Amino acid sequence: MMRSSLARVSRQLSSRQLSTKVGFVGLGAMGRHMAANIAASGTPTTVWDMSGDAVDFAVGKGCAGAADAAGAVAGADVVFTSLPRSVDVEALADALVAAGALPKNCVWVDTTSGVPDVSQRIYAKVADACGAKFLDCGVAGGPKGAEAGALAAMVGGDADALETASPVMAHVMGKVVHVGPSGAGHAVKSVNNTLLAAHIWVAYEGLLTLAKLGVPMETALAAINAASGRSLVTEERIPNHVLSREFDFGFALDLMRKDIGITMDTLDAIDMPAPALRVVNEMFCMGEAKLGPKAEHMEVVKVLEDMCGAQIKKAD
Amino acid sequence: MMRSSLARVSRQLSSRQLSTKVGFVGLGAMGRHMAANIAASGTPTTVWDMSGDAVDFAVGKGCAGAADAAGAVAGADVVFTSLPRSVDVEALADALVAAGALPKNCVWVDTTSGVPDVSQRIYAKVADACGAKFLDCGVAGGPKGAEAGALAAMVGGDADALETASPVMAHVMGKVVHVGPSGAGHAVKSVNNTLLAAHIWVAYEGLLTLAKLGVPMETALAAINAASGRSLVTEERIPNHVLSREFDFGFALDLMRKDIGITMDTLDAIDMPAPALRVVNEMFCMGEAKLGPKAEHMEVVKVLEDMCGAQIKKAD
Amino acid sequence: MMRSSLARVSRQLSSRQLSTKVGFVGLGAMGRHMAANIAASGTPTTVWDMSGDAVDFAVGKGCAGAADAAGAVAGADVVFTSLPRSVDVEALADALVAAGALPKNCVWVDTTSGVPDVSQRIYAKVADACGAKFLDCGVAGGPKGAEAGALAAMVGGDADALETASPVMAHVMGKVVHVGPSGAGHAVKSVNNTLLAAHIWVAYEGLLTLAKLGVPMETALAAINAASGRSLVTEERIPNHVLSREFDFGFALDLMRKDIGITMDTLDAIDMPAPALRVVNEMFCMGEAKLGPKAEHMEVVKVLEDMCGAQIKKAD
Amino acid sequence: MMRSSLARVSRQLSSRQLSTKVGFVGLGAMGRHMAANIAASGTPTTVWDMSGDAVDFAVGKGCAGAADAAGAVAGADVVFTSLPRSVDVEALADALVAAGALPKNCVWVDTTSGVPDVSQRIYAKVADACGAKFLDCGVAGGPKGAEAGALAAMVGGDADALETASPVMAHVMGKVVHVGPSGAGHAVKSVNNTLLAAHIWVAYEGLLTLAKLGVPMETALAAINAASGRSLVTEERIPNHVLSREFDFGFALDLMRKDIGITMDTLDAIDMPAPALRVVNEMFCMGEAKLGPKAEHMEVVKVLEDMCGAQIKKAD
Repeated sequence: MMRSSLARVSRQLSSRQLSTKVGFVGLGAMGRHMAANIAASGTPTTVWDMSGDAVDFAVGKGCAGAADAAGAVAGADVVFTSLPRSVDVEALADALVAAGALPKNCVWVDTTSGVPDVSQRIYAKVADACGAKFLDCGVAGGPKGAEAGALAAMVGGDADALETASPVMAHVMGKVVHVGPSGAGHAVKSVNNTLLAAHIWVAYEGLLTLAKLGVPMETALAAINAASGRSLVTEERIPNHVLSREFDFGFALDLMRKDIGITMDTLDAIDMPAPALRVVNEMFCMGEAKLGPKAEHMEVVKVLEDMCGAQIKKAD
Repeated sequence: MMRSSLARVSRQLSSRQLSTKVGFVGLGAMGRHMAANIAASGTPTTVWDMSGDAVDFAVGKGCAGAADAAGAVAGADVVFTSLPRSVDVEALADALVAAGALPKNCVWVDTTSGVPDVSQRIYAKVADACGAKFLDCGVAGGPKGAEAGALAAMVGGDADALETASPVMAHVMGKVVHVGPSGAGHAVKSVNNTLLAAHIWVAYEGLLTLAKLGVPMETALAAINAASGRSLVTEERIPNHVLSREFDFGFALDLMRKDIGITMDTLDAIDMPAPALRVVNEMFCMGEAKLGPKAEHMEVVKVLEDMCGAQIKKAD
Repeated sequence: MMRSSLARVSRQLSSRQLSTKVGFVGLGAMGRHMAANIAASGTPTTVWDMSGDAVDFAVGKGCAGAADAAGAVAGADVVFTSLPRSVDVEALADALVAAGALPKNCVWVDTTSGVPDVSQRIYAKVADACGAKFLDCGVAGGPKGAEAGALAAMVGGDADALETASPVMAHVMGKVVHVGPSGAGHAVKSVNNTLLAAHIWVAYEGLLTLAKLGVPMETALAAINAASGRSLVTEERIPNHVLSREFDFGFALDLMRKDIGITMDTLDAIDMPAPALRVVNEMFCMGEAKLGPKAEHMEVVKVLEDMCGAQIKKAD
Repeated sequence: MMRSSLARVSRQLSSRQLSTKVGFVGLGAMGRHMAANIAASGTPTTVWDMSGDAVDFAVGKGCAGAADAAGAVAGADVVFTSLPRSVDVEALADALVAAGALPKNCVWVDTTSGVPDVSQRIYAKVADACGAKFLDCGVAGGPKGAEAGALAAMVGGDADALETASPVMAHVMGKVVHVGPSGAGHAVKSVNNTLLAAHIWVAYEGLLTLAKLGVPMETALAAINAASGRSLVTEERIPNHVLSREFDFGFALDLMRKDIGITMDTLDAIDMPAPALRVVNEMFCMGEAKLGPKAEHMEVVKVLEDMCGAQIKKAD
C-alpha cells in the first residue's frame, strides 16, 4: 500500500511537471546547464539569450529556442532568469511588464547573484503588473553544480510560489531552502559567499604563518580539521585546489568580489558595522588589483605569499 | 585470528603502559581530568599542584600525591605539564634542571597553551641538561574533552619521543597529530584557535546582517551549512550554544584571547602581515573590555548586538 | 597710486557684482547663511526652500523670496544650491530642465556635499539642455564658516565658469580652490573629511593609550603638536572641543558619516583598496549605532572610552 | 632691572653648564650629532661606541674618547645614551651597576626609541643601585634635527632630574616637554610616531583615490591643507619628499616600524583596542615585506601604488 501510494504520488508529480511550461532567459555558464537539466527532465523549456551560440547549446540539449525574451516566457508557468546583475533582471522585468509579455500569475525564479533591495523592487513591480511571483534564488555550487543538477538554493519570497516551482527546481538543485521574505535569498547567498571569502583569507593568513615556522601544510590542515578551526575552506577548497597549485575550482575573482560587494552594499544600506568582513573585502580588492578579474578566486593567496616569502603547497 | 592478534597487541600495549610511570604537574580545569584519565588506565601517576584541593581531587581519582614538583616527576618516564603560561613551564624547567630533579631521557609532554619560541628554548635546555625530550602539545577540546579523554592534540618536537609517549597520551587524547619540529605544536594550536575566533566573529557579522533583514537564524544557518560558508562555528558552536542564549560551551574569553595573543606575538616575531586576524583580535579585545575576562568566549557577540539592535537567537 | 588703483579695481568688482543676479535653492543650516551673505553684499538674491521659515529667515536678511525653485532661478546669472544629497540636486536639475526653467548659460554652484559621479551626470545634463555650467563645490567650515563668509571651497568643473562665479562666491568663501574637472570638487571634499575622520579616530586611539599610562592629555597633545604626529585634530579640534567635554564644534555624526560614505562609494566605484579608511568608517558606524545620528561628530570618542576606562579630558 | 637679572641667570646657567660633565654612550646617526653639539657648547663630553669610527667622528668634533662605556660615564653628572633598543640600554645599566661604574646621583638621559616598561625597570634599578635618575627621552626630528640641535624631546621621569639635565639638553633639543612619570617619554614618542604613520597611510589612501579621479596632487594637497584634513604629512612630508619621488626625508622603514611596534606592544600590555592603528601597522608590515627594511619610510606608498595604477607625484 505504501508502495502503491508512492507510485500514485510519483505519477501526479510527473504529470504536474509535464504540464509545467518553463521559460528560461540567460544562458551563461550557469544558466545553460540549468536549462539543459530542466529540459532533460521532460519539462518543455523555451529559452533565450543575447548570444546565439548559447541558444544553440541549449537547443542541442532539448530546449526550444525563442526569438526574444518575451518569446521565451510566453505561456510559461515558471520563468527562470540567470543574468549578470540585478539591474539586468530589473530591466527585463520593466520591458516584459511594459510589453504585457509576462504571463499572469507565473512564478519567476531569479538565480542571478542579485542585490536584495533590487529584488524587492522587482517582486513588487511584477506582482502589481500581473500577479507574478518573484523569487530571489541565490545558488551555490558553480558551473559544475549546475551541470550536475546539484546546486544549493537559498530562496526569498512567498512560500506558496516556491512550492509551485519546487518540482522544476528539483531538476537543477539538490537542496532548496526557503530563507525568508523577498530579498532574503540574495542576502543569504551573498553573506554565505562573504563568509566563504573570509574563511579563505583568514586560513591563508594562518597557514602562511605556520608555513614560515616550518610546519608542513598537509599536517597543519589535518590538525586544524581535527580541531575547532575547520571550515569548508580548510576541509575542501585548500586541500583540493591550492596545495597542488592548480587553482582549479573554477570561480573567478571578480565574481567572488561581486558577491562580497552585494554584502558590502547591504551593510551600507542598514548601517551595520562589520570591520572584519570589510577588511576581507579590501584584501580581495587588493587581490583583483594585483591578479586581474579573471584570476581564480583561490589565487588571492598570492597577494600574501608575495609578501611573506612562503607558499601554501604540498611538502616537497 | 584477527581477534587473537588484536588481543596480543592489546596485551603488549597494556604491559608497556603498566611499566610506564607518569609525573603530572598542574591540575587545573584541564590537567586534573587528564591526570585522572591516565591513572584510570592503570598507569602509575604521581601529581603535584600549588593547590592542595587540586591534588586531593586527583588523589581521589587514583593518582599519588607528591610534596612538590620534583617529587611528582621523580622516576617518571613521561612527564606531563598543564600550566597557565609558557613562562611558568620555563620556570619549572629551570628549577628542575637546577635541582637535578628531571629524570634522565624522560619525555615531557607540555599541554600548556604555550608560546612557540619559549617552547623551543625549553626543548633545548632540558635536552642539554639530561637528554629529556620536550614535546609542545597543543590540545583542543576544553575541560569536557579532557574529562572524556577525547582531546585533539597537535604535537611539536621529536617523532621518536612522541612515539614513546603515545600510549599514555592515548588515555586522554582521541586524536594526536605530529605537526612538526619543536614549537610547531603550540603554533598550530594557537593558529587553530585564532581561526576559530575569526570564524566566530565573521559569522556574527554576517548573521546579524541577515537578522536585521528579517531572516530567521536557524534558516540562515541551515542554508550556509548546506552551502560554502560553513565552519565548525556555523555547524556546531552557534547552533548549540548561542541560539539558545545559554552561552554554555565553557571556554572563557580571556583564555581565547590568550591563544589569539600567542598568534599575534608569532606574527610580530616573523614580521608577517595578517590584517584580518589582527582586526579579529581587536574585536575580541573590545569584547573583553566590555564583558570582562570571564565571559564565555561566544558572548563576544554582545559587542556587535549592542550596536546593531538585532540578536542571534531562535525565532520566537 | 597703489591706493587709487585698488579703488578702481574695487569699483569694477562692485559694479560687476551689482550686475550679477543670484538664485539660491536650499536654505538649511549652511544655505541660509550663504544666501544672507550674498544678499548683504548688495547682489540681488532670490531664494526658495521647502520650509517657509527658512525663506522668511533669508528674506529678513535681504533676499527676495520666490514661490518655487523655478521662480528662484528665473533670470539668474549664478544659481546656488545647498541641498541634502546629490540625488536631490539631480531631481531639481531634471525638473528645471523639463520645465525649461534653467537660465541659458548660467553658472550653477552646487555646495551640497555631493557624490562625484552624480555631479558628473548633472554637469552633462544641464550643459546639453541650455549651456548651463555646473560646478560641484565642496565646502568646509560648517555653519559658523558659512555665517562668517569664511568657507573653504573645493571646486570641480570648468575654470571659466568658476571665474564667472568667483566674485559672488567671494562673499561666502574665504578660500576657493579649483581642484579639477567635474566631480573633483565633491571628491576632494569627501576625501578631506574622511582624512579628518581618520585623524580623529587614530588620535583617539593613541591618546587614550597614553591616558591609560598616566600621561596628562594637555601634555601629550603639546608634545605631539611639537613633533611629527600633529594634525588639525590634535592642534584644534581635540584641545578646543573635547578636553572640556563640551563637544561643541557643531558637526553632527550623521553628516560626517555621509561624507565618509561618499568616499566609500567612490572607493567601490574605482575598485581602490583602502583598508585603513574602511576601518575608520566602521568605527564611525559603530559610533552612530551607539550614540545616534545627532551626536556631535567628536563624541565618537565615547565608543572607545567606554571600552578602555580612560577619558580624553583636562587633568583634574 | 629685568635685563640685569636676566644677565645674572645667564651667567649662573653658563657657569652651571661649564661645571657639568657629560658621558655619552652610543654614537650612531643620532648620537654622534648630539654628542658633537654638546661638546661644541663647551661642556666636557666623554664618549664611547662599539665602532671606533664613530668615536673618531665625535673626537673630531671636540669630544674625549673613552676605552669603554664605564670610562665614558666615569665622573659624569649627566649620562646620555642613544642605543638601538631598550634591551641594549638595560644590558648597559646592568653592566654599569654590576661594575659600580655608574656615578652616584647622576642623571641619565636615554634618547633611545625605547619601550615604556623596560624604561620603568631601568629607572628602578639605577635608582636603587646609586641614586641615579633615569629619564626616558623620546626624541623627534631625525638625524637632521640632531645635527641642527633642534630635536623635539618628550621626557618621562622625575621633574627635578629633568631640571638638572635641561641646560645640557638645550644644546641638542629645541623643545623639551616633560610628559609624565617614568616610561611616559618613550610612550609619547612611540604614539607620536604611530600617529605619524597613520597620517601617512590614510593620506596615501585618500590621495591615490583622488589621483585615480584625475585630481592633480598639488591641487588636492592645497585644498586639504586649506581645509580640515590637514596634518604634518599633508603639509610637509608629502609635498617635500614624495611629490618629487625623491623620498629623501631620511628615516628608514624599519625604524618607523620599530616605533609603531613599541605602540603595538603597549596596546598588548594594557589590553587597549585600537583597530585603526593595528591596520596601519599591518600596512607598514606589508611595506617592509615588499620594499625591505632600509626603504625610506615614505616609500610605503609604493605598496598601494602598485595596486591601483596611480602615483602621488607632481603633475606632468
